[in-house]
Amino acid sequence: MSEEATLSCPLPISDYQKIVLAHGGGGSLTNELVDKLFGERFKDPQIDLRHDGALLGTYDKPLAFSTDTHVVSPIFFPGGDIGKLAVCGTTNDLAMCGAVSSVLSVGFILEEGLPMDRLVEIVNSMKRAADEAGARIVTGDTKVVEKGKGDGVYINVSGVGAIEAKSEISPRSVEPDDTILLCGDVGRHGVAVMAAREGIAFDTDLKSDCAPLSPMIRALIDSGVRIHCLRDLTRGGLATSLVELSESCRLNIEIEENTIPVSKEVDSACEFLGLDPMYVANEGRCIVILPQADAELALDTMRRFEPGQNAVRIGQFSATQNIPHVTAATSFGTRRLLTLLSGEQLPRIC
Amino acid sequence: MSEEATLSCPLPISDYQKIVLAHGGGGSLTNELVDKLFGERFKDPQIDLRHDGALLGTYDKPLAFSTDTHVVSPIFFPGGDIGKLAVCGTTNDLAMCGAVSSVLSVGFILEEGLPMDRLVEIVNSMKRAADEAGARIVTGDTKVVEKGKGDGVYINVSGVGAIEAKSEISPRSVEPDDTILLCGDVGRHGVAVMAAREGIAFDTDLKSDCAPLSPMIRALIDSGVRIHCLRDLTRGGLATSLVELSESCRLNIEIEENTIPVSKEVDSACEFLGLDPMYVANEGRCIVILPQADAELALDTMRRFEPGQNAVRIGQFSATQNIPHVTAATSFGTRRLLTLLSGEQLPRIC
Repeated sequence: MSEEATLSCPLPISDYQKIVLAHGGGGSLTNELVDKLFGERFKDPQIDLRHDGALLGTYDKPLAFSTDTHVVSPIFFPGGDIGKLAVCGTTNDLAMCGAVSSVLSVGFILEEGLPMDRLVEIVNSMKRAADEAGARIVTGDTKVVEKGKGDGVYINVSGVGAIEAKSEISPRSVEPDDTILLCGDVGRHGVAVMAAREGIAFDTDLKSDCAPLSPMIRALIDSGVRIHCLRDLTRGGLATSLVELSESCRLNIEIEENTIPVSKEVDSACEFLGLDPMYVANEGRCIVILPQADAELALDTMRRFEPGQNAVRIGQFSATQNIPHVTAATSFGTRRLLTLLSGEQLPRIC
Repeated sequence: MSEEATLSCPLPISDYQKIVLAHGGGGSLTNELVDKLFGERFKDPQIDLRHDGALLGTYDKPLAFSTDTHVVSPIFFPGGDIGKLAVCGTTNDLAMCGAVSSVLSVGFILEEGLPMDRLVEIVNSMKRAADEAGARIVTGDTKVVEKGKGDGVYINVSGVGAIEAKSEISPRSVEPDDTILLCGDVGRHGVAVMAAREGIAFDTDLKSDCAPLSPMIRALIDSGVRIHCLRDLTRGGLATSLVELSESCRLNIEIEENTIPVSKEVDSACEFLGLDPMYVANEGRCIVILPQADAELALDTMRRFEPGQNAVRIGQFSATQNIPHVTAATSFGTRRLLTLLSGEQLPRIC
């Protein structure tokens, strides 16, 4: 049997085709699930299924630590699933701190009745995403809730990684006149999940952008460009990230709206749904803040990676004596002010 | 207004008395919740509400890493709540690796409609437990799911801590003839939660044992006793921990059942419910494995702490050529074999 075939078959975890409450009870069924499903998939020298935590050893570099819980609905969508999303979410957050390889914990909340083969698929997808992201899953926890609670599965992934960058990557390091680069087109994750949820077929090719960003960030660090800050664009989209950054740095941001790549599919879906792509969630997109002089090398480096293929310069920071704000120069020659939405455009998107 | 009064009042998070979906949307309502509720409570120099992760700096000792998700139902029970439980769960797991001070991440899954004052109570209780456990909450994530999904709140806490012990504390370090100490009476957490859930008033004084174990473990490490292994007794109770340890170490365990403290209240509740206290969950109990020669000093040290007040020696390990097993000498002079339960006695206990 090929590996692909093995991976796509439900595991013979006794005769259970579905998750039962006892899989979360801490007894022999829990151990079987942990050993046969998680242990087999996440094989790692540091994983110790029989200890209360993972022993990581020592690190000689400063560490970053991050957590992300995922409750996306539906749990499978074009371009990914909740497992891939959960691993990308946390490894991308760590990459945004300059930590490009990491160790991860996984906390599952499974719903009674979840088909075992779906769980196997999710776990396989976590393993693949972790491999791509340079991450290792070393510890975990499983709880089961009654049918009707949860939506199949919720996943928390937390992670720790050594910071490879030489100078601090954070909002504190941003300087006036810094340039803002965007790695690719925006809004695909939000629209893909929305389409899957509502059963709307906008376009057969529209897939989530969900992807690990750490290989691209590693290359940026290795290239020697002076990265001041990184931010991945998740809930709230590009606009929210820019507004938050502007507030944290106490600097104005001005962007050119027509430089921002939006695919034709996302554009028409957003028009149909009354959404602004600038606020729609992404899961494999980030902005890179650096001195103007380093922009060209950074763009060349980013474009070598799939999530950075369409990397562009979209704007810059500037000093202000007043309350900092974000403006977008529109294609009509006007300028609009970007602010935080009070709610969200699309619920349960990640 | 006294601090106690401030803590017990709902925060004026705008006019929201209840959690709405937009609190998880990543927009201004999410930021308000994070800044005013979590930020105010979990104040810490390393917390950076505006960055994608916490920057931990460097460590000169080996690290332990652990995660625990809590789905206890009900979320408030005699002796604790889901917040205290979540912090104790993870800090106790880390303490079992010899890491007695730690940094924590918190991942909330909130149910739409959760009263804000309940969330405030839970957050306050997390802060208190973290202070007692020598832990700091430095990063987090909040998601909101529709009413009916979730049970008010689910919480993941993950943590990283430097290992203070000089030699490895793990099942690998256990030796034949090692002694097993138990820090206190068993079964209180499981019975207290069960009673709260079913509305059964077994006894007004019956409270969960939920407590941070790290101060006691720190004192044990400082006392110089040669700790070989530690294990906190959670889901599955004392019996499950012993069986798992015996399997991991490939050693037999023999315990004296009548040495194991069980309160009168837990004993009668278990009789009434048809439960075995040896398998009932605890959240502030652990076993300590060490050479017989160090047992007295260890017991004296443990008894100085509330969760260790009733510390006793309950048994020992021994070598075997066969499949390792755990036996309990009963008060009738017989011996019974302890095995893993296939399911669980009490669902949703942690």
